[in-house]
Amino acid sequence: MTSPTPPRLLHVLSNKTADRPPIWFMRQAGRFLPEYRALRATAPDFIAFCLNPQMAAEATLQPMHRFALDAAIVFADILLIPKALGQAVWFEAGEGPRLGELPSNEVLADRIEASTGLLAPVGETLARVRQALEPERALIGFAGGPWTVATYMIESGSSDRSISRSLAYREPDRVDGLLDVLVEATARYLAMQARAGAQVLKLFESWAEGLSEPLFERLVIQPHAKIIRRLRELGVTAPVIGFPRGAGILAQDYAGRVDSQAVALDVQATAAMGRAIQAKKPIQGALDPLLLRAGGPELDRRVEQLLEQWGSGPYIFNLGHGILPDTPIEHVARTVARVTSWTS
Amino acid sequence: MTSPTPPRLLHVLSNKTADRPPIWFMRQAGRFLPEYRALRATAPDFIAFCLNPQMAAEATLQPMHRFALDAAIVFADILLIPKALGQAVWFEAGEGPRLGELPSNEVLADRIEASTGLLAPVGETLARVRQALEPERALIGFAGGPWTVATYMIESGSSDRSISRSLAYREPDRVDGLLDVLVEATARYLAMQARAGAQVLKLFESWAEGLSEPLFERLVIQPHAKIIRRLRELGVTAPVIGFPRGAGILAQDYAGRVDSQAVALDVQATAAMGRAIQAKKPIQGALDPLLLRAGGPELDRRVEQLLEQWGSGPYIFNLGHGILPDTPIEHVARTVARVTSWTS
Repeated sequence: MTSPTPPRLLHVLSNKTADRPPIWFMRQAGRFLPEYRALRATAPDFIAFCLNPQMAAEATLQPMHRFALDAAIVFADILLIPKALGQAVWFEAGEGPRLGELPSNEVLADRIEASTGLLAPVGETLARVRQALEPERALIGFAGGPWTVATYMIESGSSDRSISRSLAYREPDRVDGLLDVLVEATARYLAMQARAGAQVLKLFESWAEGLSEPLFERLVIQPHAKIIRRLRELGVTAPVIGFPRGAGILAQDYAGRVDSQAVALDVQATAAMGRAIQAKKPIQGALDPLLLRAGGPELDRRVEQLLEQWGSGPYIFNLGHGILPDTPIEHVARTVARVTSWTS
Repeated sequence: MTSPTPPRLLHVLSNKTADRPPIWFMRQAGRFLPEYRALRATAPDFIAFCLNPQMAAEATLQPMHRFALDAAIVFADILLIPKALGQAVWFEAGEGPRLGELPSNEVLADRIEASTGLLAPVGETLARVRQALEPERALIGFAGGPWTVATYMIESGSSDRSISRSLAYREPDRVDGLLDVLVEATARYLAMQARAGAQVLKLFESWAEGLSEPLFERLVIQPHAKIIRRLRELGVTAPVIGFPRGAGILAQDYAGRVDSQAVALDVQATAAMGRAIQAKKPIQGALDPLLLRAGGPELDRRVEQLLEQWGSGPYIFNLGHGILPDTPIEHVARTVARVTSWTS
């Protein structure tokens, strides 16, 4: 009798190189799959869909049935936290999210404890998925980075976050206070996810772009470092993947200063920067979602290049940003087939 | 009798450290100045305004009258090239530019020679400004980077350039052909500006963000390297400042591989990256325009920090992106006063 194979993703997240890079895709559960669109059509409200464990578990598992992926990521949304903290959140068809009036930091702080309870359905989704998933496939829980979530809370769907960045300059205490609330709510939420079955936790800082070095330190590095410290205080040992999307060269500072177990890189990441980070910890990324959608020989060449430049170190194959809704399924299948057959 | 002081900006662009960093601001001639808004109101069409040497020279000189800046930059627009190449370009109030149907590469190539002639008014603007400007203040000519101009030509005002990036993947020959046309038209246009009085040339690659390493090589590094080679073939010796805005860590590759005399850095640039580039060539940047607008002690601290981290090497004080229209004039005046009184 052999012992069960540990998930390849966890092996790499312990800073070892696997037989080949594990592979999963950001937004692999989502609109590019017809079965997702069919499921989603049965629930008019997006937040209710996320908080329905039966539906969310099904959405989480859909890509696992189709593709030989090494990890599932729980179907949820980074705006569940502001919703649970009492700010109105709604989605209008074809548009970005909309958020209601931002409560004061004091009001939000009073709601932190209750928020984790309101997010219990995400834990139930994770428990269901963990039960259905083969043991060699890892299960990932996630939350938005506090800064990214704060930008939604401050300015809803504004395009480049300049309103939030300006507020960080003009009212530093107010923004830092909001981030402190989000740090605590996020740490508790992630801890709940880990207890419910998430073996890996990911922090999506989708709006790390356009920040100066001092702002990045204040708005991204410090809050992420605090969340991870708080998780360890809460007894959570699951590895954390930090994703400071758009951080540019600041991703290197992030890798050195935030105690995450891996760093996810966006499409801009150079081969050299990835290798420099790999000397310290595993990396993930950084295929361009536009190229996965475009397909053709350019895609094949780039997949090969990513495997060659990073595959002999601790590396998780993934995109540099979420999969696009109109990505042909065969491009995803072809990429999975190539990565899973690769040997260094 | 003493010989005239050479412009401080040219001194730094010869890779020497000046008594203090020269200072100018991207978009210093523009909407944050009431005298600009008054002048602009007299000409309904923006392109006609740019191609009116009397008006454009006045706009160029307006900030020079107000502030102790070390350089003037010719008032013009990066979309004058597509206009001169025969593509329709128009501006709608309160919105971005709009462009008409994209001609074929062959049609565009046939118009390169004529385009430089159509842009002769920009040369006349430069000649007028050079005559009015004190000899110790430098005059800068500029053009858009070919990739940035191509994105406007391909998709008008679309927000994140994903249409153009997708086209670069799907139809590489077509996009590379368009860039070749723009390289030649841009080199000739810049050569004309240098002959008319521009002592420094700047290449604004405003949309260098979001490009993978192979795309950046193809769409930014190669075209910029070609333009500079072509300028030297055309006998132009003026120093070139390259500005790959949003390039992240790829700005380092740019500094090493493109033979520009200086690299302008955006707001994300770290102290360490700037110093690494300064070991090779001068740098410019990288104050956050949102912070210049916000003002207050955060602005003062950041100005001090930039001067300290880079000021003892070849450094041109500037923003990391254009000045915002609602920037208070006193914040600009205060920053100029601080930089011009600084000693390392």
